[in-house]
Amino acid sequence: MKTNKTIYSRACNVLTGGVSRNTIFREPHPYYVATAKGSYITDIEGVERIDFANNMASLIHGHSHPAIVDAVTKQLQRGTAFTMGTEAEVNFAELMIERTNGFERMRFVNSGTEAVMTMIKTSRVYTNKPKIAKAEGAYHGTYDYAEMSQTANPSNWGDINKPNTTPVVEGTPQGAIDDVVIFPYNDIERTLNILDQYANEIACVLIDPVPHRVGLFPATNEFVEAIYNWTRKNNALMVFDEVVTYRVNYAGAQDNYTVKPDLTALGKMIGGGFPIGALAGRSEIMEVLDPRGKILRHPHSGTFSANPISTTAGRIAMELFDEEAVLKLNALANTAKLQIEESIKIADVPISITGTGSMFRLHLQANAPSTYREAYQTKEKKAVLNELLDYLFLKENIIMINTCACMFATTLTQKEVDRLSEGLLNGFKLIKPKLDQLS
Amino acid sequence: MKTNKTIYSRACNVLTGGVSRNTIFREPHPYYVATAKGSYITDIEGVERIDFANNMASLIHGHSHPAIVDAVTKQLQRGTAFTMGTEAEVNFAELMIERTNGFERMRFVNSGTEAVMTMIKTSRVYTNKPKIAKAEGAYHGTYDYAEMSQTANPSNWGDINKPNTTPVVEGTPQGAIDDVVIFPYNDIERTLNILDQYANEIACVLIDPVPHRVGLFPATNEFVEAIYNWTRKNNALMVFDEVVTYRVNYAGAQDNYTVKPDLTALGKMIGGGFPIGALAGRSEIMEVLDPRGKILRHPHSGTFSANPISTTAGRIAMELFDEEAVLKLNALANTAKLQIEESIKIADVPISITGTGSMFRLHLQANAPSTYREAYQTKEKKAVLNELLDYLFLKENIIMINTCACMFATTLTQKEVDRLSEGLLNGFKLIKPKLDQLS
Repeated sequence: MKTNKTIYSRACNVLTGGVSRNTIFREPHPYYVATAKGSYITDIEGVERIDFANNMASLIHGHSHPAIVDAVTKQLQRGTAFTMGTEAEVNFAELMIERTNGFERMRFVNSGTEAVMTMIKTSRVYTNKPKIAKAEGAYHGTYDYAEMSQTANPSNWGDINKPNTTPVVEGTPQGAIDDVVIFPYNDIERTLNILDQYANEIACVLIDPVPHRVGLFPATNEFVEAIYNWTRKNNALMVFDEVVTYRVNYAGAQDNYTVKPDLTALGKMIGGGFPIGALAGRSEIMEVLDPRGKILRHPHSGTFSANPISTTAGRIAMELFDEEAVLKLNALANTAKLQIEESIKIADVPISITGTGSMFRLHLQANAPSTYREAYQTKEKKAVLNELLDYLFLKENIIMINTCACMFATTLTQKEVDRLSEGLLNGFKLIKPKLDQLS
Repeated sequence: MKTNKTIYSRACNVLTGGVSRNTIFREPHPYYVATAKGSYITDIEGVERIDFANNMASLIHGHSHPAIVDAVTKQLQRGTAFTMGTEAEVNFAELMIERTNGFERMRFVNSGTEAVMTMIKTSRVYTNKPKIAKAEGAYHGTYDYAEMSQTANPSNWGDINKPNTTPVVEGTPQGAIDDVVIFPYNDIERTLNILDQYANEIACVLIDPVPHRVGLFPATNEFVEAIYNWTRKNNALMVFDEVVTYRVNYAGAQDNYTVKPDLTALGKMIGGGFPIGALAGRSEIMEVLDPRGKILRHPHSGTFSANPISTTAGRIAMELFDEEAVLKLNALANTAKLQIEESIKIADVPISITGTGSMFRLHLQANAPSTYREAYQTKEKKAVLNELLDYLFLKENIIMINTCACMFATTLTQKEVDRLSEGLLNGFKLIKPKLDQLS
């Protein structure tokens, strides 16, 4: 009989470490999906779990949504990829541009990584400047420039007044390191000080408005305004990574701010469960990509970009995620947060919650962190967190993201939320002795 | 009624230049697919064309292959993406590792661009050196380092003994430019001379064994051996980009050489029509990606990487592209080449053909080019080529790649090959006066 363990042992012979994405790795082995529907996943051993991770926030309607399955099934009969256009890409782009004011023009790519890379390259073309600025701890995909300092830790992060640019991958060229400026998220004074030192070289300031890896707290309006004003004065762009956060409002997390980004990178949920990325923004800037230009300033193609499967599934997912659905989902996530706060009180554990919209994250500290360095976990705390996550996964049959975060889908109901807060309560009680020891 | 023109005019309001990929752009507007089956595509105005482009070589079995449609339709019901593994990725990796000797371990990503980027980053980690070397004119996706000098032209390419590193995109950082060494393809003496100048800094020498944009002629065995030996002496890796060329033999174009690459980037056809990329190679090197390592040397994930749709479709496509299918397809492409050579003779035009396996490319020059600079087309010749391509597309209903290349699919038969050589004969006669004027 096939077990998760036997599949993993086969995997280890063909995939490095037995996985193609570190995300799915767990000790002593990952688990393998047989089938999934809505918010429930059944693994190949027949165990059913509730999914609060939704493939790292990419499934806003859970698994195998009938309307998406139906449309994709039909498109399969008509082909999946061509050296020609399809109306599907036009329909989807029209929907997205209607949805968010700041989106004047779009371009589709294959992943969030590609979207952020294309956004950074577009910013460099438009401003003719080489550097980017990004927040310490923020994840923006695997493009060298975008990933700097994502995993910064106390041994290498340096002075908070001027954080070091620390590469994520060994052997990253010094030239790439030198072209990334790191600032502390939401810290206006320090950030402006740092940006000023590179004012003539910064093409764009890259912001995730609710950065998961920083701590999943929103950028303040004052911070975004300060960045915006700085970029206006210094011939730079303010660009948002909304690959995860577009879900926060109908028009994206950017709708929460009085000023809007020049460009936005999208991905994850806008693919309706299929690989996608997109760049959207002001047409004057996007024009550098125009193939009709006399000079091709930013030649750009992609074999699978804007394929009719991803754009069809994505359009339907976004149509279904209308204003009402967004509000309803955010309300359910808020209910979950309140119930979990109750569980925290009952269990009397030093745990806090951050998050907004349909996303939240638990922190093993009594006061919610407001900076990356505050949210940073020691090895000891990470071990306790893993124990909690393993308990939830194995005993409560609850799937959360490995940072102890939930990214809700519209297929969740009060029933699953109750299971979550009860499961967490049990988990909190389990780890309480260890938490008390640590604090 | 919807026409290609009306859809494009809508597209222009939402997509920069009306397209998401420059590949599909044509003057005065692109064409939009309604449905496609096998080697035939019907556009939204009802015009049926024969497809010799196969989405830039990514559809080895043409459109909507029944076995792929069937398997994907079933997988849709079980879900498309999870924060967990699936057996599909293991099955597919097992197949590929069985297929090519040098593949010991794999990792899946979402595109050829991502595959090459991950390969370059892996090479840097393993060797702890910052630079890469690549061939002038070779296309390897849109990662800054990989795309240098892809569009080099007489005004900027410099001395052949030491070609300039010319960025493709405006505003590319000087730091990235400085970390790419350019060599002239298949030119052993000059290449080794150039590599020697950076011997301590080169992490990998990147080779496409049949580079489409260079001229679609294979690397000589002597050249590959020379590179291989140089990399052994200088603590560097020899890495292949087989995103396009894996189709050349059952085990990839690398099977033609006495020495094998350390790492290989894959993509296009191995996705069976769905977005994919992959990195394969020696396990000792791939180990830098292992999430079980004490130190994560190359942390790497991807939301849609190894998703069960792409890996299921890809596995079936590769199972169907067995040794017999490869030989049959290569034979049909060879027949096409012979027939086109006959058309060239009859039309008495200065045109030549390069290519190998199931790929070939026409050049508007009597002698087949053997270098990028020889294959480079003047603006005048490019205009004539575009006239030929437009004639074929609009009057003969034949789709070729915009370099005048064909990438065959197993759904093509002698009937379509006859249409191709006849269509080209008519096209050759049409452009002959202009070609005679140019030469």
